[in-house]
Amino acid sequence: MDKYTYIFKGTAFTSETNKKVAILKDHLFCINENGVIEDIFNSTHDEYSRLIDAYQDNDNFHTLAAGQYILPGFVDLHVHAPQWAQSGTALDLPLYDWLHTYTFPLEAKFADLEFAELVYDDLVTTLLKNGTTTALYFATIHKEASLLLATICAKKGQRGLVGKVVMDDPTQNPDFYRDQDAKTALADTEEFILEVNHLSKETKQGVYPVVTPRFIPSCTDEVLTGLGKLAEKYDTYIQSHCSESDWAHNYVQERFSKHDAFALNDFGLLKDKSVMAHCNFLDDEDASLFAKTGTAISHCPLSNAYFANSVLPVAHLQEKGVDIGLGTDISAGATPSIYANAIQSIISSRMLEDGVNSSIPASERGVPHSRLTIDEAFYLATAGGGESLSLPIGKIKKNYSWDIQIIDTTVSSARMPIFSPDEQPYDIFQKIMYHTRPEHIQEVWVQGDKVQF
Amino acid sequence: MDKYTYIFKGTAFTSETNKKVAILKDHLFCINENGVIEDIFNSTHDEYSRLIDAYQDNDNFHTLAAGQYILPGFVDLHVHAPQWAQSGTALDLPLYDWLHTYTFPLEAKFADLEFAELVYDDLVTTLLKNGTTTALYFATIHKEASLLLATICAKKGQRGLVGKVVMDDPTQNPDFYRDQDAKTALADTEEFILEVNHLSKETKQGVYPVVTPRFIPSCTDEVLTGLGKLAEKYDTYIQSHCSESDWAHNYVQERFSKHDAFALNDFGLLKDKSVMAHCNFLDDEDASLFAKTGTAISHCPLSNAYFANSVLPVAHLQEKGVDIGLGTDISAGATPSIYANAIQSIISSRMLEDGVNSSIPASERGVPHSRLTIDEAFYLATAGGGESLSLPIGKIKKNYSWDIQIIDTTVSSARMPIFSPDEQPYDIFQKIMYHTRPEHIQEVWVQGDKVQF
Ligand SMILES: [Zn+2]
Ligand SMILES: [Zn+2]
Repeated sequence: MDKYTYIFKGTAFTSETNKKVAILKDHLFCINENGVIEDIFNSTHDEYSRLIDAYQDNDNFHTLAAGQYILPGFVDLHVHAPQWAQSGTALDLPLYDWLHTYTFPLEAKFADLEFAELVYDDLVTTLLKNGTTTALYFATIHKEASLLLATICAKKGQRGLVGKVVMDDPTQNPDFYRDQDAKTALADTEEFILEVNHLSKETKQGVYPVVTPRFIPSCTDEVLTGLGKLAEKYDTYIQSHCSESDWAHNYVQERFSKHDAFALNDFGLLKDKSVMAHCNFLDDEDASLFAKTGTAISHCPLSNAYFANSVLPVAHLQEKGVDIGLGTDISAGATPSIYANAIQSIISSRMLEDGVNSSIPASERGVPHSRLTIDEAFYLATAGGGESLSLPIGKIKKNYSWDIQIIDTTVSSARMPIFSPDEQPYDIFQKIMYHTRPEHIQEVWVQGDKVQF
Repeated sequence: MDKYTYIFKGTAFTSETNKKVAILKDHLFCINENGVIEDIFNSTHDEYSRLIDAYQDNDNFHTLAAGQYILPGFVDLHVHAPQWAQSGTALDLPLYDWLHTYTFPLEAKFADLEFAELVYDDLVTTLLKNGTTTALYFATIHKEASLLLATICAKKGQRGLVGKVVMDDPTQNPDFYRDQDAKTALADTEEFILEVNHLSKETKQGVYPVVTPRFIPSCTDEVLTGLGKLAEKYDTYIQSHCSESDWAHNYVQERFSKHDAFALNDFGLLKDKSVMAHCNFLDDEDASLFAKTGTAISHCPLSNAYFANSVLPVAHLQEKGVDIGLGTDISAGATPSIYANAIQSIISSRMLEDGVNSSIPASERGVPHSRLTIDEAFYLATAGGGESLSLPIGKIKKNYSWDIQIIDTTVSSARMPIFSPDEQPYDIFQKIMYHTRPEHIQEVWVQGDKVQF
């Protein structure tokens, strides 16, 4: 009997550190029955030739073709799943109008499970096609539709972390779209946690319930207190928005006389399994609290350009010890692609470093030492996301899940600009990061199983 | 005999002004034998039913399917054609290293016509696939390879404006890659102009020679003077880089004690047919000179994030009367897509408006009134490019060339997120701008002919 369930032979890219990508050139990747990487061998290892001889004629031995490469599957730390239906629209509107004339009416439609299925099915497939193997979702206030999203993730093979959104404050939310009251919101959340945990037992890659206050401004103290207790009781993931914009930051400061981070922490919402979206206005004390509690940041560079009034200082926050991964923030971010967000994380970081206003002298224009390299952006898209969730994903490494994407640089309809047979693997890596579209993503595997899309 | 060579029936989007897109819902677009739009009729016009009856059974009557839309072909005002071969690589390097260890060695390889054909053929096809019907190219210093690029544009049906690059200063350029001397550079340029003008006579959509000093720092006074005279003598297009970065801006200031704009103007290089790349550091006097001379700006927002130390204040410069279109700036910009640059022009403009450094108070962080809307970005990608070149392209309008792209929002492998049958056309327009990839671009027509790719 074979020791390994699959062996893949090919070249892979994976983060060695948050600043450096490693190139595993023509290695063997040996996957066990749990979908976990059990061994990795390079060509100088004794096992290398022995395993090729033993497995190469089997169906479970996969040799990558010339021009194909393995990357870890991407982790998307912030997706508003219902908003996929409006992706790309209304971004010229101010936030208030965007929420009240587009977003809330759309989210309210997810009371209709048929509509929810149409959108969620398409979204999960689209994210998988874009190489996203793990996604942390805001669903809507509806318990049933939120459970449906978790079910679709489970069925399609995506590692889904799903939150039923809580927004109960009648003074801040429209009557047509909010939780009836704190008590109902908490009861629905608890039922949702139990049902998703039940679903997860029969899901190889795992699906996870997430305690999800929309953000402090939409929640009462009562509900925030109750959600902190539920997260504690069931040891769940927690997500929300934190210090996203001038407005949000100032709102919390006025309500609690403290920053978002400390207010959330008081409600028991900053923990190792917490991921907070945006966080552009964290100061150093807030950042230290994040590092101390193990709270991660979901960095959404495309969305931030529209609604966050600033660029997240990623390099600085990493130095303070905060875990950071990437989020598309569909639909404030208008693409399902983590590739696009990885590239924008570089672009935004360079604009933070150099500044934007050419009428200011260069020395006063930007914030030195802010730039991210392509290696760092790749880390955010992969291992940074995995570490933010404290899951063994995002790296091609022993004991990590076999969550990967296989990129074909030679697809005839979308050939990448590679013209020389002796192009260096590191140049190819960069071309993959800048040019990959779903067309190039030939296969996606999650927890050792190939997903269908 | 038919009066029109083609009639298209469908919905088109086109700029009404630089701030507003018009939706031509279910119109007839009537194209004459020169590939020009001769008439446009909406359904209330008498001709509408008469023409449908007369043409609908003919091969030259094209009815768009449900979910298909017509957009003007895009105009790319700044492409370094040889750099397509390195697109996506080395963007983490400082400009000097990027030029000397990657870009100049690559461009030098275009002495080899076989290599040039491989890259140029792929690039022109790729740009057409991305909806770019007109492109303004920097080739290399090589006369023959530059002519080859023009020939490939002519053959493939793209409206190509091509420049043999001039860079003759031995103190500023490497020995392995520069013009031999000013005299040779000017003689080569003159021959190139004559040959492209000759080629253009047998090219329906037109190809155009462009006088192309790389930028002031790489050219001697002698060559700049001579190029101004050649442009005058043959009434050619002119392109260069202008006030791109702190370094370039300061270099010209030191050499001529004036800004780039005035120095270029002294050499006869700012005219109605001039397009200058970047221009981030223009002050208001420079901008007035641009407006007065009819010189246009090619705005390259993706490239600018890497090498221009700032964001171009598009809205302000438009108010000063300067024509502006978009450029990919391959390969400082790492995508062949004008869609991506249109979106980035919005994103960068919002970052200019709001600022980037969250530790500065909101009131001092950015530059108010800088934001561009999706309608304005669309204008830059289409009509703005056409006006920059003073050509009747970039609009779906009577007497404009039939340079268009047909977008299919329903492609099964890349369905756009449209879930409601009664979605508004303006929302669909926005989704097209944010989500279109080459897969959605079903057909591209230039000057009334469908191109093959
Ligand atoms: Zn969000
Ligand atoms: Zn350039």
